[in-house]
Amino acid sequence: MENVQAPTAALLTPEALLKHWQGHRDLTRRVIEAYPEKELFEFAIGGMRTFAVLAMEIIDLTGPGIKGLATGEWGDGPMPHISGEGMPKTKEDLLTLWDETTKRLEIYWPQIPVEKYEDPVKAFGMYDGTILSSILYFMDNEVHHRAQGYVYLRALGIEPPAFWDRP
Amino acid sequence: MENVQAPTAALLTPEALLKHWQGHRDLTRRVIEAYPEKELFEFAIGGMRTFAVLAMEIIDLTGPGIKGLATGEWGDGPMPHISGEGMPKTKEDLLTLWDETTKRLEIYWPQIPVEKYEDPVKAFGMYDGTILSSILYFMDNEVHHRAQGYVYLRALGIEPPAFWDRP
Repeated sequence: MENVQAPTAALLTPEALLKHWQGHRDLTRRVIEAYPEKELFEFAIGGMRTFAVLAMEIIDLTGPGIKGLATGEWGDGPMPHISGEGMPKTKEDLLTLWDETTKRLEIYWPQIPVEKYEDPVKAFGMYDGTILSSILYFMDNEVHHRAQGYVYLRALGIEPPAFWDRP
Repeated sequence: MENVQAPTAALLTPEALLKHWQGHRDLTRRVIEAYPEKELFEFAIGGMRTFAVLAMEIIDLTGPGIKGLATGEWGDGPMPHISGEGMPKTKEDLLTLWDETTKRLEIYWPQIPVEKYEDPVKAFGMYDGTILSSILYFMDNEVHHRAQGYVYLRALGIEPPAFWDRP
């Protein structure tokens, strides 16, 4: 693919895409906060996972994911917390991991030059795509699982934060 | 904003963004298909809307939305079907509207030149943003509501299509 930039110039900059993602992450954080401690770790519908586990999936894709995309180092493979010993036990611990991930995103994001976004990668040593398709997958996956957390909250009689209310 | 393309060139082309959205729309169509006729129009959790109504919200944002963004004509305002008389009564009718919307997206999308994506718009005469932010909102809103449909399906004991399985 020569001159890929020629016919269709900048639609979305890396800076704008990061801002969009961090806006989603800010909303997801408020969804976590909206849960009562107990239900965050125990409530689910239809045999699905609890919102704590879904939130940890988001953390496990985003943190190790952005590091892997920026450095090529994929560490312990996918979802170290969920598959390993690291599941947090409290909402506070979960939010601490959340905030560490937010910072990690700010650190590694600028290390990916714009011309690399179409480079092929095998995310977590397993999933074929490009840097951009991996990022879009991580973001879409967050919106997807957060929305499931909205249904849990509604089932618990709790009003979730507004979907459109993102910085 | 002069030379907005200078520091950060093409990250995502309009063609790639449309393909990404249509991939999501293909999955959402399969989620609609996975519903039994009755539950599509009657089942919900925690006082939420049925998946038929959520799917119609997606249709009402996407079809009139893309026409409005391309032409500046916002027609009857937001969500003509849900707020008006046009709610489909059967899954087949809903899927027909879905497919018409898919075609409409293909027709109007190329009418938005790449240099217009950052132009300010008031979507549906009500929502301030840019063409790009409006498109991202419509897409995110689809992923959000579709995911809620996943929870309904799980609560009904029905396996939804895989989230990652998108063309």
